[in-house]
Amino acid sequence: MSEPSHVYELIIVGAGPAGITAAIYAARKKMDFVVLTTNIGGQVSFSSEIENYTGFQYITGEELTTKFQKHMERHKFDSRMEEVQKVEREDDLFRVETDVGTYLGKAVIIATGRKPKELTVPGEAEFKNRGVTYCATCDGPLFEGLDVAVVGGGNSGLEAVLQLIKIAKSIYLLQRGPQLKADTILVEKAKTSDKVKIWTNTQVKEIVGDKLVTGIRVQRNGTETLLPVQGVFVEIGSVPNSDIVGFVQKNRWGEIIVNCKCETNIPGLFAAGDVTDVPEKQIVVAAGEGCKAVLSAFRYLSQR
Amino acid sequence: MSEPSHVYELIIVGAGPAGITAAIYAARKKMDFVVLTTNIGGQVSFSSEIENYTGFQYITGEELTTKFQKHMERHKFDSRMEEVQKVEREDDLFRVETDVGTYLGKAVIIATGRKPKELTVPGEAEFKNRGVTYCATCDGPLFEGLDVAVVGGGNSGLEAVLQLIKIAKSIYLLQRGPQLKADTILVEKAKTSDKVKIWTNTQVKEIVGDKLVTGIRVQRNGTETLLPVQGVFVEIGSVPNSDIVGFVQKNRWGEIIVNCKCETNIPGLFAAGDVTDVPEKQIVVAAGEGCKAVLSAFRYLSQR
Repeated sequence: MSEPSHVYELIIVGAGPAGITAAIYAARKKMDFVVLTTNIGGQVSFSSEIENYTGFQYITGEELTTKFQKHMERHKFDSRMEEVQKVEREDDLFRVETDVGTYLGKAVIIATGRKPKELTVPGEAEFKNRGVTYCATCDGPLFEGLDVAVVGGGNSGLEAVLQLIKIAKSIYLLQRGPQLKADTILVEKAKTSDKVKIWTNTQVKEIVGDKLVTGIRVQRNGTETLLPVQGVFVEIGSVPNSDIVGFVQKNRWGEIIVNCKCETNIPGLFAAGDVTDVPEKQIVVAAGEGCKAVLSAFRYLSQR
Repeated sequence: MSEPSHVYELIIVGAGPAGITAAIYAARKKMDFVVLTTNIGGQVSFSSEIENYTGFQYITGEELTTKFQKHMERHKFDSRMEEVQKVEREDDLFRVETDVGTYLGKAVIIATGRKPKELTVPGEAEFKNRGVTYCATCDGPLFEGLDVAVVGGGNSGLEAVLQLIKIAKSIYLLQRGPQLKADTILVEKAKTSDKVKIWTNTQVKEIVGDKLVTGIRVQRNGTETLLPVQGVFVEIGSVPNSDIVGFVQKNRWGEIIVNCKCETNIPGLFAAGDVTDVPEKQIVVAAGEGCKAVLSAFRYLSQR
């Protein structure tokens, strides 16, 4: 692989709400930058109904992704659909390796977001995409008329349930702890359907099947039960996509630690949105953080 | 004034991007709250063209305000057009006095934004609204075919210039320092017009006139000049609307000091957006901060 001759002012990794907002601001400031990403929209593109991004009363994840993308593409700049594999320091620059090539930048913003967390129970890996799924929006329609289980009682679990009410025959909502953690408005909606059975204090032990999923074995109040379902939607949270950077400070969940200006402990390295330890993983927060990160990077570069 | 009998969980003061986002999230969590404000949209409503709120490629301040308002009003909750005059502590509650009544809350979010900074030169107060204005969007059309000066070379100054190009006969852009601080894209647009004269290193000494403004006296490179203009647009920044709270920690600019969770030094008192010391005063940042503040307040109330 030949050495890149160009040194960008800024490399933005990721194009979810944080990365896109950073790109819009960078373009308006006419910075010399490139966006490296494998997808546009990040977790937004997997969301079904979004009602809490200020300014849009109701919008689907797909529609909001399109709006974000169009906004970003209004500006001309370098953007590549490449997968970043490693970010390293090289003298006073950063070296970003993708599956295609190598990029050098004076500053980098990591805005790689998160990916779904796995249950890590027997059968999960075996039946992935054969009944086990991590995206109700993407895969929900495949389970028309079938019995399914949703694992996780937070907002994403409840949103999965609400989508599946229109599709599935019956839905078990399984929550490990004693209480659902989702917004009241979502829980109330879910409870209005006869299709939904809410099981709290329930732990998933195994996913069973033949070629496809046929059931999920759970433990509830000391008793094991095999629920006959053909689909298992895992909605138990997510983990940050932070493995590409080794030399930066992270917390015990692997989130990149940033201050209120989106600065990491490494000068010139910034991070924004759900990959960081920002307290709230919300679209509107990630967008705001993307703005902070790029303006901090701009300031860093002016003072360099 | 009789003592209020109801104690709200949360009182949100202000309804700009931060306050509105806080209200949307509070409504979704079915919190018992009230919004107290004198206006909807805050500084957004005075903005002309907005191109950096992620998701909207181009929108006027008025249009974005309407979208924010409709989003907020989709939810049913208590909202009053009242001017908050004082926020005080009373035992373990907060007491909010408006021009109309008194409200008690267990938690408060201050999201009162900012107001324009004044030049504090002779003639400014005398000719306010008689040629001196702080809002190009509101007052620009009054200066059709006239010569005007815009004071301030940041984004708001340049945005004023760009609006006035279509209206005024000629525009002096006066900047105290040696360089314009606005985004390059705005500066380049302004420079394409023959109407615009950019004067850097220029200090405003006095605004002169008879019944209305007739000129602005400036000092540039040691020489005083009287520029004959009929309008002076002051765009030199803004100050936080934080006087209503006395007992909270502020920085030397009067901004309420918050941590990354929008917590102030007073438990139960939160602040969000441009009234705080958040590093970037941007719409998308304020919206994100409003979200953080209300989720922090929610957590505070659950643990109370």
